[in-house]
Amino acid sequence: MKFNNEYKIGKNVILGKNVRIGDGTVIYDNVEIGDDSVICNNCVIGEPLNDYYSNEEYVNPKTIIGKNSLIRSHSIIYADSVFGDFFQTGHRVTIREKTEMGNNCSVGTLSDIQGFAKFGNYCRLHSNVHICQKAIIGNFVFIYPYVVLTNDPTPPSKICIGPTIGDYSQITTGSLIMPGIKIGENCLIAAGSVVTKDVDDFSLVLGVPAQKKCDVREIKSRNDKDESYYPWMNNFERGMPWKGIGYEEWIKIKN
Amino acid sequence: MKFNNEYKIGKNVILGKNVRIGDGTVIYDNVEIGDDSVICNNCVIGEPLNDYYSNEEYVNPKTIIGKNSLIRSHSIIYADSVFGDFFQTGHRVTIREKTEMGNNCSVGTLSDIQGFAKFGNYCRLHSNVHICQKAIIGNFVFIYPYVVLTNDPTPPSKICIGPTIGDYSQITTGSLIMPGIKIGENCLIAAGSVVTKDVDDFSLVLGVPAQKKCDVREIKSRNDKDESYYPWMNNFERGMPWKGIGYEEWIKIKN
Amino acid sequence: MKFNNEYKIGKNVILGKNVRIGDGTVIYDNVEIGDDSVICNNCVIGEPLNDYYSNEEYVNPKTIIGKNSLIRSHSIIYADSVFGDFFQTGHRVTIREKTEMGNNCSVGTLSDIQGFAKFGNYCRLHSNVHICQKAIIGNFVFIYPYVVLTNDPTPPSKICIGPTIGDYSQITTGSLIMPGIKIGENCLIAAGSVVTKDVDDFSLVLGVPAQKKCDVREIKSRNDKDESYYPWMNNFERGMPWKGIGYEEWIKIKN
Repeated sequence: MKFNNEYKIGKNVILGKNVRIGDGTVIYDNVEIGDDSVICNNCVIGEPLNDYYSNEEYVNPKTIIGKNSLIRSHSIIYADSVFGDFFQTGHRVTIREKTEMGNNCSVGTLSDIQGFAKFGNYCRLHSNVHICQKAIIGNFVFIYPYVVLTNDPTPPSKICIGPTIGDYSQITTGSLIMPGIKIGENCLIAAGSVVTKDVDDFSLVLGVPAQKKCDVREIKSRNDKDESYYPWMNNFERGMPWKGIGYEEWIKIKN
Repeated sequence: MKFNNEYKIGKNVILGKNVRIGDGTVIYDNVEIGDDSVICNNCVIGEPLNDYYSNEEYVNPKTIIGKNSLIRSHSIIYADSVFGDFFQTGHRVTIREKTEMGNNCSVGTLSDIQGFAKFGNYCRLHSNVHICQKAIIGNFVFIYPYVVLTNDPTPPSKICIGPTIGDYSQITTGSLIMPGIKIGENCLIAAGSVVTKDVDDFSLVLGVPAQKKCDVREIKSRNDKDESYYPWMNNFERGMPWKGIGYEEWIKIKN
Repeated sequence: MKFNNEYKIGKNVILGKNVRIGDGTVIYDNVEIGDDSVICNNCVIGEPLNDYYSNEEYVNPKTIIGKNSLIRSHSIIYADSVFGDFFQTGHRVTIREKTEMGNNCSVGTLSDIQGFAKFGNYCRLHSNVHICQKAIIGNFVFIYPYVVLTNDPTPPSKICIGPTIGDYSQITTGSLIMPGIKIGENCLIAAGSVVTKDVDDFSLVLGVPAQKKCDVREIKSRNDKDESYYPWMNNFERGMPWKGIGYEEWIKIKN
């Protein structure tokens, strides 16, 4: 009932094999969607940039969405971005121009990516995450609801310095990351933290302003009090490339 | 001008008497809507679960919305949930599967219920509230904007332990409730709190992390400095079943 | 591709010269839109008030949007509000009735104005800002993502006392402003603050609860360590009326 061919499509749109497009969706010029992807209803893909409203000779930049992607309903993705394969979104996502995402990334319902941002592979943004311009996010970074990344140290100003987040770090619910902050690899940012200083690899930080509490490897597992839970890759594999073989084995094969 | 019969409707949909459905709305299979309800424009009711995209034999589970409900525009309600009578939503609400709500509940604009959650009667979620899976909410619980309930103590993990909130408690703006936390009855969680420990009945807690400040019965009324304001039921009756007779009288009649 | 004349329009709608209206947009009775404005696709302008659903003689109050405005897609603006010239919104904005905005204001993606609120000229609300009823905002006030203004000191109650924010103040990311708080002119509210006391002119406040840290004029510029950055008007002119001539000169001409 979702796919009645009631959508609009622009010029030079390239649709892969078996792509399904929901009712009420609009796909603008120069969008490319990989094989076996689903674009649900009422989405806008390749939303024209601001120039569109005033420049009669406006040409829409290219937008690429990888194979096996699933864009849920009412999402708006601006032109001039590139998403890898197995890209997924929730509903009502807004993603501005010049966003680059690797493979296997997901962006939750209501999340808002301001563009000019870069993500590695296997990043997961949950619902209602706000990513500022110039943010640089590594691989396997998970960001939880109501986290905001910021980029202007003296608002309002012309300075725009996005935060950097290293591989495997977990930025948990309601944290605020200040402009230009560098969060290392394997960090855990506790809920409600305001991160005003750089964070070393393997640190748990918490509070307002956030202070280092301990090394994440000191945090015990809920299920086995003798075992450290972090690095989490040994304890979590849903959707991860090491599913079924374990992280250690995957790293060996990969290298 | 809202109701021009320009909507889509699936199979086995049961519409009560005098139900009005707005333009652009889609109602999927096996939805049941009670008498005198209004579903505004551009809503999705009974949104199919993820399985829909891959399983050709997918059957949509039942979705029930009670009588006298008002679902405002652009809301998305997944299949397999049950809402009581006099249910109301704001705009752009997202409610996932296996949500149970009693009678007289409301969910504000942009709120996001992740499903597998249970609410009593007369709950009010204001704008932009985020309810995690496995949350259990009592009766007459009001939750204010930008509150987030969480369920994973060591993210990311397979553990999912939602918070529990007792009857009459007020969870005010921007609070974060940590996984598995039990908030008693008649509590007041102050704005911006990060609640990391269980909260006893009648407690006011505040801060990051939240600490008990006092008993809520010590909080004076703004209008009458000699009177306690809480429990609030003696001082507030808009939309409450004790309207016109007072809470004490209502409790007597009810029991 | 956006403007195919596939919109709906009510009675007594006044459209200025060169107004463009996107597909799927609905404009209700008694809306007035100024010259050269663009209303993008899937917007609702003049959304009827609650009375509409039950009162058969309902008459939609007047809604006015000034000249040269740009309302981005999926925004919902209730009837009975007035916006000045050069008004701009992001996507999915919700603005309730009895909102007054001066000229050159903007409201970012997902922001939610609860109505009965008043703004001066040149206010900028970024993404995901929540403005309560009865808030009073001056001129050149910028409010950053996930800021929430609140109005009920003893929730739930009948008391509704919105905050007041003075000219040029900057309310930065994730701050919560408590009911009835008065923030002076030229203030800087740091990210993640919970503001529970009035704030004097030129104050930087931060923390939970927010404390005064210093005078904003003591904050140095990132680019020139000998210079104060605030008041910011000497250092920022994008979109400001002093662009090209400087704030000091503009003030002289203006007075």
